[in-house]
Amino acid sequence: MNAAHWPAFEDVTDAAKRIESVANRTPLVPSFGLSRMTGAEVRLKLETTQPTRAFKVRGAANVILGHEDIDPDQGVVAYSTGNHGRAVAYVAARAGHMATVCMSHNTTSDKQDSLRAMGAIVRLVGKSQDEAAELARSLQESGALLVDPINDPLTTAGQGTIGLEIIDDWAEVDTVVVPVSGGALMAGVALAVKSESPTTRLVGVSMDRGAAMYESLRAGEPVVVDEVESLADSLQGGITHDNHHSFEMVRELVDDLVLVSESEIAVAMAEAVIEERLIVEGAGATPIAALLFRDRDVFGDRIALVATGAMVDDVTLTRAIEDNRSEVARLLSSSR
Amino acid sequence: MNAAHWPAFEDVTDAAKRIESVANRTPLVPSFGLSRMTGAEVRLKLETTQPTRAFKVRGAANVILGHEDIDPDQGVVAYSTGNHGRAVAYVAARAGHMATVCMSHNTTSDKQDSLRAMGAIVRLVGKSQDEAAELARSLQESGALLVDPINDPLTTAGQGTIGLEIIDDWAEVDTVVVPVSGGALMAGVALAVKSESPTTRLVGVSMDRGAAMYESLRAGEPVVVDEVESLADSLQGGITHDNHHSFEMVRELVDDLVLVSESEIAVAMAEAVIEERLIVEGAGATPIAALLFRDRDVFGDRIALVATGAMVDDVTLTRAIEDNRSEVARLLSSSR
Repeated sequence: MNAAHWPAFEDVTDAAKRIESVANRTPLVPSFGLSRMTGAEVRLKLETTQPTRAFKVRGAANVILGHEDIDPDQGVVAYSTGNHGRAVAYVAARAGHMATVCMSHNTTSDKQDSLRAMGAIVRLVGKSQDEAAELARSLQESGALLVDPINDPLTTAGQGTIGLEIIDDWAEVDTVVVPVSGGALMAGVALAVKSESPTTRLVGVSMDRGAAMYESLRAGEPVVVDEVESLADSLQGGITHDNHHSFEMVRELVDDLVLVSESEIAVAMAEAVIEERLIVEGAGATPIAALLFRDRDVFGDRIALVATGAMVDDVTLTRAIEDNRSEVARLLSSSR
Repeated sequence: MNAAHWPAFEDVTDAAKRIESVANRTPLVPSFGLSRMTGAEVRLKLETTQPTRAFKVRGAANVILGHEDIDPDQGVVAYSTGNHGRAVAYVAARAGHMATVCMSHNTTSDKQDSLRAMGAIVRLVGKSQDEAAELARSLQESGALLVDPINDPLTTAGQGTIGLEIIDDWAEVDTVVVPVSGGALMAGVALAVKSESPTTRLVGVSMDRGAAMYESLRAGEPVVVDEVESLADSLQGGITHDNHHSFEMVRELVDDLVLVSESEIAVAMAEAVIEERLIVEGAGATPIAALLFRDRDVFGDRIALVATGAMVDDVTLTRAIEDNRSEVARLLSSSR
C-alpha cells in the first residue's frame, strides 16, 4: 500500500469542476417514510437521477475528461456488464470518443443492446468476466484508455464529488451512509466529507454475501471472496489484489462498516418504492436496509443515505414490492 | 379576462431566486427507452425529485416566500388532498409558518397522516372538496394566507421556473411537453420557454376523461367538466370560473393540446419504470403517453417531457407494470 496513491481533497474539488457538464448535481431529498420510522431526520442522495441512473458516471467522467491525450482511433475501453460500462459509454459519447465495452458471451442481449444504443462498441469474448478483462487490457496495450472503476485516483475523486454536494446542501449532517464494493465510492465520499466536516461519521454498508471490503478489513489486507448471487449485484466483485488506495482509505476514514442480508435489502427496495416513490437497485438500497435493521446508535439524528443507482429490472422490483408490502406497513405503524 | 393578471417573464426569474432554498433545481436526464422508440432525442425533467416528489413545491414556495406579512397566528392554508397540499405543508414547515390543510372526511387516513408528519394541521370537514374549500376561504377571511394552485400569478411564475431550467440545460430543445390541468404549470412553463426560446414549441397533454382546459379552449371560455376517475388523478379539477390568467395564457402561448387515454397512460407509467427506472404518477406520465401514441410530427427531434410527480401508490404502479410489460417490449422491439 502506498499512501502516495491517495487522491487529495483538491482532486475532488477539481473533479467537481471537470465533470459538471456531464454528470448531474443530484438532489438530496427528505425521506418522509424513513424519518417517521426512525425518528431521525433522513435524506436521500439521488444518484438514481444521473443520466445513466447510477453514480458511476462521476468517476468515469473524471477519468475520461481528465485525459487530454486519448487516441481518436483507440478511444476508451471498459470491462463491465453493469453501471460502470454504461457510464463509460455515456461519457465517451458525450465527449466525442469511441468507447469499447468488453463482456463475455454470457451477457444478456438486453445489456448489449442498451450499450450499443448509447453508442458503444460491444466486444464479446469467452464465457467469463476474466476473459473480458483480458481483452480490455490488450486493447489498453494497443493504446486505448482503460477506465478503471477501482484503482484510479481520478475515479475515487470523481465519486467523492457526492460528498462535496451532501455537505454543501446539509452542513449539519451527522452521518453519511454509503454502499461499499471495491471501495472507490466509499473512499472518495469519506475523503470529501471528512475534509469538509471532520465530525461527520461515515458508515459503509455491504451485503453479507461476499463482502470483499469487510473481509479484507478483518484480514488486514485485500482478500478475495467468493461471488454469490445477490440482490445487490452491483456490489459484487473484489477490491482487487493490487488495490492501490481504496482499501487503505476506507480503513482510515470510515467509522463503521455493517452488513445487511438479502431479505433486508428486499424490504429496503420495497420501502423505497412504497414510501419514498423511488426506484433504487439492491446495492443502492443497502443504506436503507442498514438504517432499518441495524443498531440505530451508529447513525445519529441527521442521516444522509446515498441511493447509488436504479438499475434494477422490473420483475425483481415488483417481486420485492409484493413480498414486502406488509413488512413495510408494519415498520411504519410500529413507529407511530 | 384581463391580461394585466398575467405574470411577466421577470416574475419567473424572480421566482427562481426566491424558491432556490426550498425547491430543487431538478435533473433533466436522457430517456434511452423513448429515444430508441421514437428515433428522437428525448429527455425527462424530473420534478419527481422535488422534496415532496412533485413540482407543486415551486409555486407554493413562490407564494409563501413572496408574502412577508404572514400572520404567525393564522399561517397559511390550502384545500387539497394531493400534491398541492403536500407542497404547502412542506414549504410552510421550512419557512417556519403554521400550515392548515382542509379536506373532507372522505380523505384516506394515509393522506392525513402524511400531511401531519410534514407538520401541517389537518382540518376535516363535510364530505366534499367544495366544503373543504369553503372552510379554507373562511380561514382566509380570518387572516390566513390562502395558497391558490391556479389563480395566483405567483403560483404560475413559480411553476414557470421549470421552463427556465429546461432552456438553461438544453437551449436546442424543439418541443417541451407538459401535463395540463388548471393550466398554471402549462402557462408558467410556456411563458418562460417562449420568452427565452421563441421557436421552441409547447405541447400540453391532458387525459381524455374530463379535460377541463381542452374543453374550455374549444368553448372559448372556462367551462366546467364532470370529474371522472382517472389514473391521472392529479389532473382532475376544473380551471375555475374566475380563472384569471392561465386560460388566456395557454390559449396564446401553447402550440398544441393533445388528449391521451387511460390505457395509454398505464403503458406510459410502465415504460417509465421498465425502461427509464423512474416512478411517474399518471398525470406525470401523460407526456410519455402522448409521445408514444400521438402524431410524431407534433414533437420535433429534440423533446423535453416534464415528469411532474411520483405520487402514485404501489398497488396502482405494480398493476400498470404487470398489465403492460409486453406492450412496452413490443414498442421497444418494433422500433429496431
